[in-house]
Amino acid sequence: MFMEQKYSPEVIQRAKKIKVVLTDVDGVLTDASMNFFTTPAGATLEVKKFNAYDGIAFHMLRDSGIKTGIITGGNAPSTEYRAKALGMDYLYYNFLSKLQPLEDILIKAGVREDQVAFIGDDLIDLPVMMRVGLACCPGAARDEIKKYAHLMLHTPAGQGCYREVAELILKAQGSWDEVIAKANVGEIGLSRKKETLVVNFKDWKM
Amino acid sequence: MFMEQKYSPEVIQRAKKIKVVLTDVDGVLTDASMNFFTTPAGATLEVKKFNAYDGIAFHMLRDSGIKTGIITGGNAPSTEYRAKALGMDYLYYNFLSKLQPLEDILIKAGVREDQVAFIGDDLIDLPVMMRVGLACCPGAARDEIKKYAHLMLHTPAGQGCYREVAELILKAQGSWDEVIAKANVGEIGLSRKKETLVVNFKDWKM
Amino acid sequence: MFMEQKYSPEVIQRAKKIKVVLTDVDGVLTDASMNFFTTPAGATLEVKKFNAYDGIAFHMLRDSGIKTGIITGGNAPSTEYRAKALGMDYLYYNFLSKLQPLEDILIKAGVREDQVAFIGDDLIDLPVMMRVGLACCPGAARDEIKKYAHLMLHTPAGQGCYREVAELILKAQGSWDEVIAKANVGEIGLSRKKETLVVNFKDWKM
Amino acid sequence: MFMEQKYSPEVIQRAKKIKVVLTDVDGVLTDASMNFFTTPAGATLEVKKFNAYDGIAFHMLRDSGIKTGIITGGNAPSTEYRAKALGMDYLYYNFLSKLQPLEDILIKAGVREDQVAFIGDDLIDLPVMMRVGLACCPGAARDEIKKYAHLMLHTPAGQGCYREVAELILKAQGSWDEVIAKANVGEIGLSRKKETLVVNFKDWKM
Repeated sequence: MFMEQKYSPEVIQRAKKIKVVLTDVDGVLTDASMNFFTTPAGATLEVKKFNAYDGIAFHMLRDSGIKTGIITGGNAPSTEYRAKALGMDYLYYNFLSKLQPLEDILIKAGVREDQVAFIGDDLIDLPVMMRVGLACCPGAARDEIKKYAHLMLHTPAGQGCYREVAELILKAQGSWDEVIAKANVGEIGLSRKKETLVVNFKDWKM
Repeated sequence: MFMEQKYSPEVIQRAKKIKVVLTDVDGVLTDASMNFFTTPAGATLEVKKFNAYDGIAFHMLRDSGIKTGIITGGNAPSTEYRAKALGMDYLYYNFLSKLQPLEDILIKAGVREDQVAFIGDDLIDLPVMMRVGLACCPGAARDEIKKYAHLMLHTPAGQGCYREVAELILKAQGSWDEVIAKANVGEIGLSRKKETLVVNFKDWKM
Repeated sequence: MFMEQKYSPEVIQRAKKIKVVLTDVDGVLTDASMNFFTTPAGATLEVKKFNAYDGIAFHMLRDSGIKTGIITGGNAPSTEYRAKALGMDYLYYNFLSKLQPLEDILIKAGVREDQVAFIGDDLIDLPVMMRVGLACCPGAARDEIKKYAHLMLHTPAGQGCYREVAELILKAQGSWDEVIAKANVGEIGLSRKKETLVVNFKDWKM
Repeated sequence: MFMEQKYSPEVIQRAKKIKVVLTDVDGVLTDASMNFFTTPAGATLEVKKFNAYDGIAFHMLRDSGIKTGIITGGNAPSTEYRAKALGMDYLYYNFLSKLQPLEDILIKAGVREDQVAFIGDDLIDLPVMMRVGLACCPGAARDEIKKYAHLMLHTPAGQGCYREVAELILKAQGSWDEVIAKANVGEIGLSRKKETLVVNFKDWKM
């Protein structure tokens, strides 16, 4: 299906400007399941259910010079593992209030709000959704989030909805043919991985 | 969609009175999957699959002064972990007969039966379902439970059906605008967490 | 829905005679997912995804004097954990050929083939399916299994299809009202648990 | 349903020639979920969600003299565990570029490209999809993969789509009756397991 059939001209216009793609974790990169088990020694560990299509999307964006990152209220160690493994630029965790990380990233990346895309699904994402240039949400997002999103994604949370945003942006910016060319010679994800900036809310000083 | 389109006037009337929201675990907070693995040392551990939308719901109810809790026949340690992490008021576990915990909570919370909501899905929830002011169940609940429930939820078990009950109650009681106001300034879930009362059936004395 | 609307007279007739309800594990008690992880020390552990509704079904059948058990080609330790926790009578594992366990159980339980129900889903279940009085399968079973099953279940594998068979049998035998009566006074699953007979194919001598 | 109703004459013709069935892992043998947890000691472990129907398919193909294997960009240790447990012939991992493993297997197995089937789902599978005799993909595969696949499978990824390919090939080659005959006497999967050739990209020398 051609991009023009899936997305409105306004959304495509917004996608053209994006230089940073940020996302929530639970209910976006995952299906909102929160999986826990407790070891005999009493430690409770969280199993995060990420998605392979989203994983490749982080590589594609990096290959194309677009920055990526996570702002989450959660604190699962495997989110940090995945952020680093996929070479994301930013990981802010334990942030129930997400505006401060957004503002921090705007400065660090040297971009304007309209150059940032964000994917969120629940009420704590509202303040960021209302500020960024391209606010997206999966279909299972809360009603209030859908109301402020520029785009409700076709792909469900945890099944590649971050990938959908990545492809939309790369196509809108005319970079998609280059991605396919790299795929044909087995060179996707081979650009040098950046070191991930990891910020814990508990260590945060404005 | 407006609340009046989703719920009957009787259900909304019942929701207005609720001061305590209790729930079963398996088949309500989870999708009824029971996930186990055994370590090389021979310990069998259970992985519970909770949901992020439900998690925020416990915070919202606490923020609004409504008590929350769990009555379960199970005994997964990660249920206790989650009850404490989300600041629930009550956790009764290993209770195959759930009436005694209900009566205990009525006394401790100082409320009447019609001020309690409960979400259940299987036969062992029947006696409690028949007593409380707002008895809810997910769509996959057993036929006998559906028969006695005041409300069959739109949201499937493990995908946020507790959240649906929480939003219904907060909207019926006129507290929802305050929740959204808190969301807009990044203040959801910031009320002081109560200590969770944890009762194991095996230690129970009436 | 009344039982007569869901099941044919022939199936109900077969269900009336059942005294033992046996089942495969993968693709019946689970959704056929095979979940593995490897520890840093190199041990690979299997996470089995059972179902809470099925769990209660084993209790209900035991309460009503019907024997239960598993015949599986697999060897996950958590299957043994669950068989014992639910008080099943028989667990035969590592059996790629399932006729010998069936014959062993016929002798041990002192029943005829037409008094046994079995739920299977894949080709290795065929020989047993063709022998027992009530052969059932979930909807995702292989075509050859569906061909020989007396009943294709309404409930998907891993979502309570064993429970469906249990309820059919208890209703056909007129024991269901007693189950509900027990539920109303919080006494489901309180009958004395039998010790589970556990047989590993590798230790098997005919 | 007869094979001729499910598959085109061209696909059946291609299936007749196949002597080696290769596959990707994530999004083919799994549902593309990437599940991680981190131990208290700081090790992050991946839980792979394979499928029981696919497992039996590897046994069936080996019983019928067809070689099997995996080419993956991933490196989960439990993939090696499963490759060995199911007696696969080849496992190439950490290969983001998959053409070299294909060429290596062509030499080792002594077959031509048109005698190889491959199942892939994402862009890094493109080069191999364009070379093999029977290129298959699940329904959730990326658009570019669907474009080059000879066959889009009826079975979703992680629910037995490898099994579907195996059955198609065995039926097209007239070996299916023999499989059923083995099933009827409990002899599926009893052929001698080959030792799996395991190649890590990091140790690879052309």
